[in-house]
Amino acid sequence: MNQKKAVILLSGGLDSSTTLAIAKSQDFECYALTICYHQRNYLEMESAKKVAQYLGVAEHRIITLELGAWGGSALTDHEMVVPHTDPIGIPITYVPARNTIFLSTALAWAEVLGARDIFFGANLVDDLNYPDCRSEYIEAFEKVANLATRAGVEGEKFSVHAPLLKLTKSQIIQQGINLGVDYSITLSCYDPSSDGAACGFCDACRFRAQGFEEAGIKDVTRYSVSLPE
Amino acid sequence: MNQKKAVILLSGGLDSSTTLAIAKSQDFECYALTICYHQRNYLEMESAKKVAQYLGVAEHRIITLELGAWGGSALTDHEMVVPHTDPIGIPITYVPARNTIFLSTALAWAEVLGARDIFFGANLVDDLNYPDCRSEYIEAFEKVANLATRAGVEGEKFSVHAPLLKLTKSQIIQQGINLGVDYSITLSCYDPSSDGAACGFCDACRFRAQGFEEAGIKDVTRYSVSLPE
Repeated sequence: MNQKKAVILLSGGLDSSTTLAIAKSQDFECYALTICYHQRNYLEMESAKKVAQYLGVAEHRIITLELGAWGGSALTDHEMVVPHTDPIGIPITYVPARNTIFLSTALAWAEVLGARDIFFGANLVDDLNYPDCRSEYIEAFEKVANLATRAGVEGEKFSVHAPLLKLTKSQIIQQGINLGVDYSITLSCYDPSSDGAACGFCDACRFRAQGFEEAGIKDVTRYSVSLPE
Repeated sequence: MNQKKAVILLSGGLDSSTTLAIAKSQDFECYALTICYHQRNYLEMESAKKVAQYLGVAEHRIITLELGAWGGSALTDHEMVVPHTDPIGIPITYVPARNTIFLSTALAWAEVLGARDIFFGANLVDDLNYPDCRSEYIEAFEKVANLATRAGVEGEKFSVHAPLLKLTKSQIIQQGINLGVDYSITLSCYDPSSDGAACGFCDACRFRAQGFEEAGIKDVTRYSVSLPE
């Protein structure tokens, strides 16, 4: 019997790498999609390649979308400073409409592949107040996917899976470890050094470090500075 | 009083050029967005530049999205043949999830600009059976836009305008002429010659020619062959 195909948005960070491992564990034939959008941590691309190879995918595509063209986020506007403290409300690392563009692009590839399942690593607990990580957003996008496409018109249904949505970072790490994810090859930092070491201070680094600590698992992240124990 | 800003998806074809003229006539400050997606008719870009300049926009951005990466449409897969006859059902010139990706990208720029209005030239009558040109699709996308964004969370509302949705091609042309559109600088053809002349045979050319004829307006399109009178 043919395996069902799924498209997985893979940034090379902790969440998306775990999401890929989960899709594999659900017996999907996995097509990993990495979107290069002129973000600061372009080194994520290298992590994404390593993760796709390590976990094994049917195909890994890296495509470029020029979302940095208009800035509007500390992740794409290199003049803005990545914050090291907890934000109030929606953080400046929110990239306008990013998940909608990413899911739309995944939908396009899914339709061409004949896949009806899309996985992405949205997470409510640690992603603070990103509006495009809420379950009502995901449901609304599924509706668009089914109205937008040839497959939807022909009565097939797209599902957008966000298996991490309600997990804490430590639960995500625990699940990833159980599924054989090697977190030493993933990169979560918003502002890594040029050799790919994590800064240790941005939101992504702090949540990740806290996640390892709470899970009681040794943090295998390589940092650019020695962090206090 | 400050003018309200709007983002207009501008391909350089007949429909999107008319849409830009309509947005201007509704007194929006217009930000034109042209998306280069490795489509066959890359010469549309040149038309888009001319139209943006001719009609006058606050800013014109051309950005590249690699949608040709996976083919799946006669418009992006250069091995496929653009048809010259009426299709049954959804035509092979349908580009998977294209409008969703375009609207998502427009939404991103709109959010950065502080614009809450997005215009695009979707048309039900002549666009045959493209699923992503239906009004229920547009409503579903508006819902995603409002759930996805910082502005939506903060209680502001995005509107997606498709002013051509229920017009025939001749009505579109009539409206464009009334608003001062110069159709000689627009390019609709799916498969133009290298010097930007229209083929005269693809769906886009045939609908356009028929539109001029029904409107009783001289067709100013430059064709690569002499068409029968």
